[in-house]
Amino acid sequence: MENPKSAFSEWYTEITTKAKLCDMRYNVKGFVVFMPNSVTTMKRMYSVYEQELERNAHKPVWLPALIPESNFTKEGEHVKGFVPEVFWVTEAGGNKLEERLAMRPTSETAIYQMFSLWVQGKADLPLKTYHSAQVWRYETKATRPFIRSREFHWIETHCAFASEKDARRQVKEDMKTTERVIHGQFGIPFIFFERPQWDKFPGADYTFAADTLMPDGRILQLPSTHILSEKFSKAFEINYLNEKGERAGCRTTCYGPAISRIYAALISAHGDDKGLVFPFDLASTQIAIVPIIRKEGGEAVLSYCKKLYKKLSKKYRTVLDASQNTPGFKFNEWEMLGTPVRLEIGGREVEKGEVTIARRDTGAKETIALAQLKKKISQIRREILPLLRSRADNSFNSKIYAASSLEELGEKLKSGGFVKIPFCTMQKEGEACAEKIKEQFSANVRGSRFGKKEKTEGNCIVCGKKAKAVVYAARQY
Amino acid sequence: MENPKSAFSEWYTEITTKAKLCDMRYNVKGFVVFMPNSVTTMKRMYSVYEQELERNAHKPVWLPALIPESNFTKEGEHVKGFVPEVFWVTEAGGNKLEERLAMRPTSETAIYQMFSLWVQGKADLPLKTYHSAQVWRYETKATRPFIRSREFHWIETHCAFASEKDARRQVKEDMKTTERVIHGQFGIPFIFFERPQWDKFPGADYTFAADTLMPDGRILQLPSTHILSEKFSKAFEINYLNEKGERAGCRTTCYGPAISRIYAALISAHGDDKGLVFPFDLASTQIAIVPIIRKEGGEAVLSYCKKLYKKLSKKYRTVLDASQNTPGFKFNEWEMLGTPVRLEIGGREVEKGEVTIARRDTGAKETIALAQLKKKISQIRREILPLLRSRADNSFNSKIYAASSLEELGEKLKSGGFVKIPFCTMQKEGEACAEKIKEQFSANVRGSRFGKKEKTEGNCIVCGKKAKAVVYAARQY
Repeated sequence: MENPKSAFSEWYTEITTKAKLCDMRYNVKGFVVFMPNSVTTMKRMYSVYEQELERNAHKPVWLPALIPESNFTKEGEHVKGFVPEVFWVTEAGGNKLEERLAMRPTSETAIYQMFSLWVQGKADLPLKTYHSAQVWRYETKATRPFIRSREFHWIETHCAFASEKDARRQVKEDMKTTERVIHGQFGIPFIFFERPQWDKFPGADYTFAADTLMPDGRILQLPSTHILSEKFSKAFEINYLNEKGERAGCRTTCYGPAISRIYAALISAHGDDKGLVFPFDLASTQIAIVPIIRKEGGEAVLSYCKKLYKKLSKKYRTVLDASQNTPGFKFNEWEMLGTPVRLEIGGREVEKGEVTIARRDTGAKETIALAQLKKKISQIRREILPLLRSRADNSFNSKIYAASSLEELGEKLKSGGFVKIPFCTMQKEGEACAEKIKEQFSANVRGSRFGKKEKTEGNCIVCGKKAKAVVYAARQY
Repeated sequence: MENPKSAFSEWYTEITTKAKLCDMRYNVKGFVVFMPNSVTTMKRMYSVYEQELERNAHKPVWLPALIPESNFTKEGEHVKGFVPEVFWVTEAGGNKLEERLAMRPTSETAIYQMFSLWVQGKADLPLKTYHSAQVWRYETKATRPFIRSREFHWIETHCAFASEKDARRQVKEDMKTTERVIHGQFGIPFIFFERPQWDKFPGADYTFAADTLMPDGRILQLPSTHILSEKFSKAFEINYLNEKGERAGCRTTCYGPAISRIYAALISAHGDDKGLVFPFDLASTQIAIVPIIRKEGGEAVLSYCKKLYKKLSKKYRTVLDASQNTPGFKFNEWEMLGTPVRLEIGGREVEKGEVTIARRDTGAKETIALAQLKKKISQIRREILPLLRSRADNSFNSKIYAASSLEELGEKLKSGGFVKIPFCTMQKEGEACAEKIKEQFSANVRGSRFGKKEKTEGNCIVCGKKAKAVVYAARQY
């Protein structure tokens, strides 16, 4: 790597190119080709997420990519929020279509008409679905690989409930899922915020979103979960026959983990000056075997490596690197790619029936008997994730500050991270104060921390009115 | 089920609705919503297929959904073949686009420009990729769920090689993959044909395709694999520096298993008069536990069932059916859904520490000690697939006929299935004879059997010229 991780922006650009994670040269603006090294990991991430959703009784559906304009415009706020970003299909099979079709930017308006058919009685509730798919949004900001593009890969869950209480419970379950998967299994720290009223998902009553910090101290939004306005269930007639024999409207929720974006957070949280670092289970290549061949004994070394490969590749994503490059070049390469375990095999190892094993996360290297290898790999596999997670947690927690004046806010924001401030209100009237913070410091008010009561003291640092909320401000990706 | 499987068309419509496999009421013509019961199975099918492709060194990529019109029109035959079926995006973000963007009907023209960047020297070859995705084609024939729609779910592989010999080897590997997965693991029989020259993939030099038979004796095309014309690698400049230091063009191949369509073949091959039948590993629900509750002892039965559920659901997709329906209703329901194993638990089973276990594939039912259950389930799991496969093979093989005159061909086609005939030629000049067969009998010439030399005798049954090929004719979906 030419750039250290402290020069984060350059580091990120360099690693996505050098490790062949994606190719930005595709000739539709904002569209990226994702390459095997990242896709292998993202497929694992999808699988971990889907398992967790299914454990919580979500069922998979596959929804159409195209949504008729008339569906799309049924709920006023939703259409206002998304229409500026839509790709429209207007022609097909040589004919102009009677109605424009939107390439889904999100699927509420596709699935809700189905919900109205699927939900009849209370026995059909709760209805919990998920859809692993791509969505398309005509972003105007610059493309950043995995972080922002016009096509992204995500999971969207769509649920319907008999009451708002059930919907609230779902939102909490979504947060727990986020914790179990993104923090628990991917090792990425975040804070869940209730977003201010002026910064909600278009058509939502409440939006809760997870924000992580990138190494430069700017935030990246991870999944958000929403309690949608009853206008949706009215517009799409999602209702059920209640005990009194009356039609009652459902409450709906949605939740959207964007796998490609979480991947950006993953490589940014764990990477270092040498390149990528991955939890063992997520690595594209888990074990690299590097033969070290001197003038003599090359064949014996290679055949020893092949035997190892045959054994290990049954269980792990393993590569035997028999290319013509020097061992030193190969070590750097596999380190840059974030391969968790590297085995180095030379004449000495063959002679003694040993293996030299190097860990990517700690850099530790030791030579062990072949008979110990299986156990050693299992041990390293277990150890990596907790270590990466605790490193990432420490870095994250060291970047949470507090300020009690605008001046202090500006000062603290310079070093990046979250700055906690007393703030007038999360209701609509607070927007003017948030705007001022944005203008002055290019920072956003992310909302108040969910699930943790923070004591409100003093006055809003912008307007001076009595503070009704503690909010977090930060610069955003 | 109201319809027996012998009334196949009605049976198929009934089962896709009754088992909630998909919903045809989505309001864009030709687009279907796939529901949890089918998606759970199709996700498993994807996973089996992807594992097999990766075993053969294919690497996953994610390609953009949109292809610029200028890419699309680079290869003349390809554009002619696909343009009539394309959905075009012409507007985005409120603006008219300068160039139309095609929603991919297939991705050759998206990935080939990347291949030209990725392939430099011989060390970059072979280049073997796969992409699991949806594609969109403006079909004019009627929508049949899973069989034909305007959006379908498939895998497409794209590969580049240094020579035609390597490309031919790939095509053979693709056929072997088809055999291992579709016949080996899904239990669906088929024949691989080399398609006649007039019936190739648009832009291919050679097309090989697998045809299966549906229960009504009509064929359904399963995956096809193609050696593409060198015009592609010329148009997209996919070439490498050879040993002489010269630029040499690559040969490319592609292969496209459509998972949603293979699912149609799966349910059609194995289903019966009672509904769906699945290989154990592919079933949406693998084990259904049905409590049989009389007046007394309900709680003991339920708690016994819950314990069973807790144990089994760790390993298998298990449902405890505690709904208010009668046991008889439930038995029918789980049979209709194709759940391979049903456990019936009544007071007697609880008292004796037993389980009554019913198999969907054979209908066999027996009562065993609880301690035997684990082993019994493993045994049934192992036995189902070979049984279903051999049943399907027998049915398939009984529908291959031969004819030596047009009259006989017409007679044999009445009962459905393949009819082998002597035919003038698979080259372009044979098309006129194939057209006559199509006009007279609504049957297609599918090509000659790949990998099995069949003795050519006599004259073409249409034009009377000396036969140079043995081809198979059949009616098609």
